[in-house]
Amino acid sequence: MSSRVRELQETVCALHAELVRNNLVAWTAGNVSGRVPGEDLFVIKPSGVSYDDLTPESIVVCDLDGNLVEGDHAPSSDTAAHAYVYRAMPHVGGVVHTHSTYASAWAARGEAIPCVLTAMADEFGGEIPVGPFALIGGDDIGKGIVATLEGHRSPAVLMQNHGVFTIGASAKAAVKAAVMCEDVARTVHVSRQLGTPLPIAQADIDSLYDRYQNVYGQRSSR
Amino acid sequence: MSSRVRELQETVCALHAELVRNNLVAWTAGNVSGRVPGEDLFVIKPSGVSYDDLTPESIVVCDLDGNLVEGDHAPSSDTAAHAYVYRAMPHVGGVVHTHSTYASAWAARGEAIPCVLTAMADEFGGEIPVGPFALIGGDDIGKGIVATLEGHRSPAVLMQNHGVFTIGASAKAAVKAAVMCEDVARTVHVSRQLGTPLPIAQADIDSLYDRYQNVYGQRSSR
Amino acid sequence: MSSRVRELQETVCALHAELVRNNLVAWTAGNVSGRVPGEDLFVIKPSGVSYDDLTPESIVVCDLDGNLVEGDHAPSSDTAAHAYVYRAMPHVGGVVHTHSTYASAWAARGEAIPCVLTAMADEFGGEIPVGPFALIGGDDIGKGIVATLEGHRSPAVLMQNHGVFTIGASAKAAVKAAVMCEDVARTVHVSRQLGTPLPIAQADIDSLYDRYQNVYGQRSSR
Amino acid sequence: MSSRVRELQETVCALHAELVRNNLVAWTAGNVSGRVPGEDLFVIKPSGVSYDDLTPESIVVCDLDGNLVEGDHAPSSDTAAHAYVYRAMPHVGGVVHTHSTYASAWAARGEAIPCVLTAMADEFGGEIPVGPFALIGGDDIGKGIVATLEGHRSPAVLMQNHGVFTIGASAKAAVKAAVMCEDVARTVHVSRQLGTPLPIAQADIDSLYDRYQNVYGQRSSR
Repeated sequence: MSSRVRELQETVCALHAELVRNNLVAWTAGNVSGRVPGEDLFVIKPSGVSYDDLTPESIVVCDLDGNLVEGDHAPSSDTAAHAYVYRAMPHVGGVVHTHSTYASAWAARGEAIPCVLTAMADEFGGEIPVGPFALIGGDDIGKGIVATLEGHRSPAVLMQNHGVFTIGASAKAAVKAAVMCEDVARTVHVSRQLGTPLPIAQADIDSLYDRYQNVYGQRSSR
Repeated sequence: MSSRVRELQETVCALHAELVRNNLVAWTAGNVSGRVPGEDLFVIKPSGVSYDDLTPESIVVCDLDGNLVEGDHAPSSDTAAHAYVYRAMPHVGGVVHTHSTYASAWAARGEAIPCVLTAMADEFGGEIPVGPFALIGGDDIGKGIVATLEGHRSPAVLMQNHGVFTIGASAKAAVKAAVMCEDVARTVHVSRQLGTPLPIAQADIDSLYDRYQNVYGQRSSR
Repeated sequence: MSSRVRELQETVCALHAELVRNNLVAWTAGNVSGRVPGEDLFVIKPSGVSYDDLTPESIVVCDLDGNLVEGDHAPSSDTAAHAYVYRAMPHVGGVVHTHSTYASAWAARGEAIPCVLTAMADEFGGEIPVGPFALIGGDDIGKGIVATLEGHRSPAVLMQNHGVFTIGASAKAAVKAAVMCEDVARTVHVSRQLGTPLPIAQADIDSLYDRYQNVYGQRSSR
Repeated sequence: MSSRVRELQETVCALHAELVRNNLVAWTAGNVSGRVPGEDLFVIKPSGVSYDDLTPESIVVCDLDGNLVEGDHAPSSDTAAHAYVYRAMPHVGGVVHTHSTYASAWAARGEAIPCVLTAMADEFGGEIPVGPFALIGGDDIGKGIVATLEGHRSPAVLMQNHGVFTIGASAKAAVKAAVMCEDVARTVHVSRQLGTPLPIAQADIDSLYDRYQNVYGQRSSR
């Protein structure tokens, strides 16, 4: 196993702890994967393993068809969806899946989250869209993710009656998108409970998105 | 005391910490029990003891009529309900009881939780049903649990105006069901606050349930 | 200072950590007091001190008129209310005050929490009542607490537009009542969000209350 | 770098941990700044740095135009707003910005939080007002904060579709205001979900505010 794979296993293992710390997952639900740079491989959470028991060694290695290449455990039951995204979207370096409460609540109604917060304009560039209902076990979930995200700036998609998938240039960026998705899903939900949030003009959304993608943060750490 | 009982006391003691960690219990409310394999005994939380003060030794041993067989403390006031379940359902190896917030909120309205999330179809195979109002102190609660669960795939039952009981092949499986029950009770509640969640077709629920029960997780760790 | 006072300061200091752990308080809000057995004294949180900085020595000693008897800090700004309760209710050994979210939300509407959960019947013996709006700085809050609680089984009172006061035979019992009050305030709130919780018959409430007060828990630890 | 600056960096670094502990921030959102006593400088969080990675050294020093004076990182993207407040309000020693959930939910509707809790009267002296929608990147946010707060007792302003800014005599006081703002935003939200909170008479609000600002807490620690 290359040192590049080992390093990614450590990163992806540590990022799963962020899902727990940010209250995005219950029991063994949820998973993070990361593409191995320069190889047709990605690493992903093993299926049904407790977050407490995850170690870098337990993070399994798969090829882009989702077949297990190395590891002592079966890969996550969502592996086919991750694999489909890596095949279809070469710029994606990380994928995250959760059933986080507020995002999944919007998903259960099949309703996109409207962009009524400047933080949403920054991170998602508009609404967070809804993808189709799809059964696990083939490429349907992956296809639904890709078909939905290709038409949007958003790195997050709400899969109907299911949960959230997020993408990013790295596994860490995809985890950030999952954290921010739940954060804005909750705030917009709470706001809607007592009335109608005020819209943000499209030109302002465009301006905020452009600035955040190009100016925010430390140049060296993006 | 056999080493089998001692081992189960350790497991059941540790599982109570999962109730706390997953915010399912307040103060001393809630309890986990586990059937002693091959014997007509089960172990259960002592009554009114703080979660911080639980030790494996403090977990009491009862016979299947709920009588104290070994232990320095009185058994949980819910012992009769656990005992009834073990007598009536030989395949059950663990029982959990909580007043977790969202599940109890559905229970207070006497309303089943509709199956509008794929994670619910996976784990519960349909709605989470409601059992009757029953007073503590006899077999009424136990009878209500068994009568309700016998007609459902669900390992969880919402006892009206009371809280949740869950069952499983092991105490750990019953704890998992309690964690997942509160998780879906919360997500469906939140979804319903702003509209009507979309239904999932019965054939899809059946397909998801069948797959999850038979495919998910590591073969060795089920 | 007697060893009895020192011991109570340690107990009351530790119980403040329970307010934090159970998410009942923000910043320096909230306070616990305990009556010194056999003396016309009680100990209480100092005013405006961070929960992190509380030590047994910082817990101040007051007489039953609320005057500082020993301590390097000013007593809690709610001391007059605690003192009034100790003067008027000789059986009370502990008092707790919080602005916990859900209880304070009922209090802001001036609405009692209806008894629709068996855990409420157990602990509160019926609804949790509302006391009058009263300004800080004299005996008005204390009078409102006592006038309301004297007519109820409940050890908790929602003071209108303000928060919760709870009483108990000991400071620990009052903290338990504060924890359970917020727990049932939240569950009944959540239940009411989607409809009307089912009532519990008065005879059943009476039966549950009687049993819980006389049977539950370890005989030695009550 | 003066010891006065170093000490303030340590204080401001530690105060960021309070934002995390009080669940006011997600990922890298949110920031605290503090004015350097006697100098035309303030210290503030670097942009896009994880809360786990903040150290006193990483807290950057800016002049009152928001230009970086010392530090290895770019200052927070909200630095211009902080700088504007320090220029316009000489009595302000600390500024905090968060997107805390409940406060931001009121902000998204452009709705002030009504003063229906005695704790709000104490801390905010009335409603928490709403400031205008403003884009990041110039003085618009700073101007909106100052124009709104100058007409109110409240140390907190809800910036429309954005989040909260709070001010204080010190960075710690501004953090306290941010914590209390979210606390009352949540309680009033929850109360409003099931009806209309009772109003508090203006004379009572005035009385509570006056007392709290002048009597509460330890004289030495204000």
